[in-house]
Amino acid sequence: MQLVKDMLSGQRLALARLISKVENRDEDLASIMELLYPHTGKAQIWGLTGPPGAGKSTTVDRLVTHLRTQGKKVAVVAVDPSSPFSGGAILGDRIRMQQHATDPGVFIRSLGTRGKHGGLSHATKEVVLTLDAAGFDVILVETAGVGQTELDILRLAHTVIVILVPESGDSIQVMKAGLMEIADVFAVNKCDRPEADKLVREIVNMIGMEHRDWTIPVLKTEAVRDAGIAELIAGIEAHQGYLTQSGARQGKVRTFLKNEIADILMERLSHSLEFAFDSSSGKEVLQDLLDRKIDPYKAADLIST
Amino acid sequence: MQLVKDMLSGQRLALARLISKVENRDEDLASIMELLYPHTGKAQIWGLTGPPGAGKSTTVDRLVTHLRTQGKKVAVVAVDPSSPFSGGAILGDRIRMQQHATDPGVFIRSLGTRGKHGGLSHATKEVVLTLDAAGFDVILVETAGVGQTELDILRLAHTVIVILVPESGDSIQVMKAGLMEIADVFAVNKCDRPEADKLVREIVNMIGMEHRDWTIPVLKTEAVRDAGIAELIAGIEAHQGYLTQSGARQGKVRTFLKNEIADILMERLSHSLEFAFDSSSGKEVLQDLLDRKIDPYKAADLIST
Repeated sequence: MQLVKDMLSGQRLALARLISKVENRDEDLASIMELLYPHTGKAQIWGLTGPPGAGKSTTVDRLVTHLRTQGKKVAVVAVDPSSPFSGGAILGDRIRMQQHATDPGVFIRSLGTRGKHGGLSHATKEVVLTLDAAGFDVILVETAGVGQTELDILRLAHTVIVILVPESGDSIQVMKAGLMEIADVFAVNKCDRPEADKLVREIVNMIGMEHRDWTIPVLKTEAVRDAGIAELIAGIEAHQGYLTQSGARQGKVRTFLKNEIADILMERLSHSLEFAFDSSSGKEVLQDLLDRKIDPYKAADLIST
Repeated sequence: MQLVKDMLSGQRLALARLISKVENRDEDLASIMELLYPHTGKAQIWGLTGPPGAGKSTTVDRLVTHLRTQGKKVAVVAVDPSSPFSGGAILGDRIRMQQHATDPGVFIRSLGTRGKHGGLSHATKEVVLTLDAAGFDVILVETAGVGQTELDILRLAHTVIVILVPESGDSIQVMKAGLMEIADVFAVNKCDRPEADKLVREIVNMIGMEHRDWTIPVLKTEAVRDAGIAELIAGIEAHQGYLTQSGARQGKVRTFLKNEIADILMERLSHSLEFAFDSSSGKEVLQDLLDRKIDPYKAADLIST
């Protein structure tokens, strides 16, 4: 496929077109992934999340700048699942990232909700594979919030960075939101605010109770002033080093690929069900179900055979 | 099954046990649903959502009180998907609902996240079917927020009530969050606050641009003072009347049942994949995928055959 060749030779427009095809679940998707997949596996995938107002976007912006000074090619995927109906990304094309717009070593893309049954999570995974094949050194996946969909999406990352601010609540809320389980690195942003040290202490204490191989660092940042960003990158790199040395990276990649296979089969099932419900036998099954002659589990047996 | 018989004869403990079985995806689930399903289809299912702090819980509390004075049996299912790891519901057993705790005509249950691939949405649907079979007149499903997972869950409701407060933002944010598409009735709560009328006006204007069969009412409530609750119930009942007269109810039930069948088959696929990955041929496929000898779509073909 010419488009894939063009993308692999570094053509930016070809990359943008391929990503659109992936996002729109193009009919050539399987062929595209077949061609791309051998070129994947080199990028570091960082996930970044936090409650609204924590300064995620500013932090991403700073991380990009620092990584660029290190000569790394960086892709940013901003995912906003909060609008299941708009079909596009609310975040738009990120005006704040404009300073990177003319830099050929930076690629920025927003993804909104597509379809159902984990469609956004699946599309995001394949967009990341595409960017990996395109040769980006670091792929930063930023999600808009800390709901279940967002956290599901972040399972594709090697390292998950959770950004908090003192106002986002106490450590109990952090735990409740499931952030303790997903975080590999914590950043307490806007650390000039009075309650920052208290939040850092609380989280450090909670981490201390957990006894894991990797001790999650809790770092202080003030992204608007570019403070603590180098230390944040060092913390992320330390986690990447841990993943490689401990062999945990292999396990993460394995889980990622299992999920990708599951997503592919779920998507296929979803498509085949649409056809099944439209067939005459499918309509009959549904009518019998509506008339309560059969129950949903029996109907599922009948529809799937 | 004795438990189902006991539940159908009105035993509360049997109902609670059945719901636990449904929530925990018991191995007898298919048999349970087969026995329950013929008794379903009588309840009105109301969904209720809104941003945090909108007063959802207080509103539910008031709705229950009003429905009880009408002699209706009411079940409340409070769903909190925000914690994907805790395995239990954060909301706990709702201390604020204590006044209804000794009322045999009220049943309250909190559901937290279980499993993956839409597990919570599926479990919630079947809990609602169980409560329907148990003879509740109104089943109120309250979700904790307005993320995609929450809105997915609300697709099971006949009537969706969206609670807003002036502080929850302007009408543009309401639209962005996808609430305009899901709402059948809007309630602007804490309507004593200065900006309430402005929010009501904006939403009414947006609704005016949509031209649908059902004109979504925008009602003002002050749940803490029990103000506007009777009008809210009247608005909901009007929507229920519309559903019946227009034939739209049939379409909603059909969609609900299609989703239930899809969920059953997705859950089965998910289980069978766990076995497939553990089998020797499955491990081989995964290793070939890790070694990039095959791509994920090819791996999906091999795993599913």
